[in-house]
Amino acid sequence: MKDADTPVDRRYLEDLQIGERFISNTHRVDADAIKAFATQFDPQSFHLDEVAAADTFFAGLAASGWHTAAITMRLLVTGPLRFSAGVIGAGAEVSWPQPTRPGDVLHVESEVMEIQPSRSRPDRGIALLQSETLNQRGEVVQKMQAKLLVFRRPVAGDAQGETA
Amino acid sequence: MKDADTPVDRRYLEDLQIGERFISNTHRVDADAIKAFATQFDPQSFHLDEVAAADTFFAGLAASGWHTAAITMRLLVTGPLRFSAGVIGAGAEVSWPQPTRPGDVLHVESEVMEIQPSRSRPDRGIALLQSETLNQRGEVVQKMQAKLLVFRRPVAGDAQGETA
Repeated sequence: MKDADTPVDRRYLEDLQIGERFISNTHRVDADAIKAFATQFDPQSFHLDEVAAADTFFAGLAASGWHTAAITMRLLVTGPLRFSAGVIGAGAEVSWPQPTRPGDVLHVESEVMEIQPSRSRPDRGIALLQSETLNQRGEVVQKMQAKLLVFRRPVAGDAQGETA
Repeated sequence: MKDADTPVDRRYLEDLQIGERFISNTHRVDADAIKAFATQFDPQSFHLDEVAAADTFFAGLAASGWHTAAITMRLLVTGPLRFSAGVIGAGAEVSWPQPTRPGDVLHVESEVMEIQPSRSRPDRGIALLQSETLNQRGEVVQKMQAKLLVFRRPVAGDAQGETA
């Protein structure tokens, strides 16, 4: 469905369609990665140590939600949906219905929900992308709605102001 | 303002007040940390390489927004507001008004916006915490509204069901 001028990895705002869906590769999360992330960014017992974690709300070692979010970003950036200027997030709403556990194999399923050309900046717009991060059992470990800054296809001669 | 039964680092839901404010320590972000995070979680040129980044939307090396979010979590977890069961996020809304740059020294200023006891689970509730992450020039690099799961102070005898 893509023509030669619209490679899937160099999208402009015009190349997106509401309802389009994208599925990422997978990423395995092991206990060492959970602990390494937590040591740097979320040093709490339930993210750092299996034994201490057993007695907490999580009842076992669990990844930081921000670790799940970071893995989700990796899966998005290395996935099938790529933009001319890269994946640039203006903001996002995330929730974690359940934690990522050691040994989980995650992937991300995304859908384009809205496409809003900017009123003030004619060269760009915002795409609202809804992404679910799922584990190997199909359980959702993260829901996200991200606002992505996406550029429009440059008009020929724009650089020289010839369209003015 | 704290009595001996309510140490600042072991809060229950009842110990929070709407409008309370908390200021974190600081955390310096250098170029190597920006690149290391991006290599793992957000491998895009503007987060990986100063020269390549110069020609992008960011016009120079910039931290992944998820890196800023992760640093914010570190500053929250190691800051003055601590909960009986830890900082457990149910979800969050984040936006990045501008990027974190190499050499930035970040801190987080937070305010308790809402406190909602759970209707179905009498042992817990949700606290809505609004946090701004600022750099050394006072510029906001992240705004966040986080829903935190906070437990209520256990009632004496609860464990044995003596209050039923």
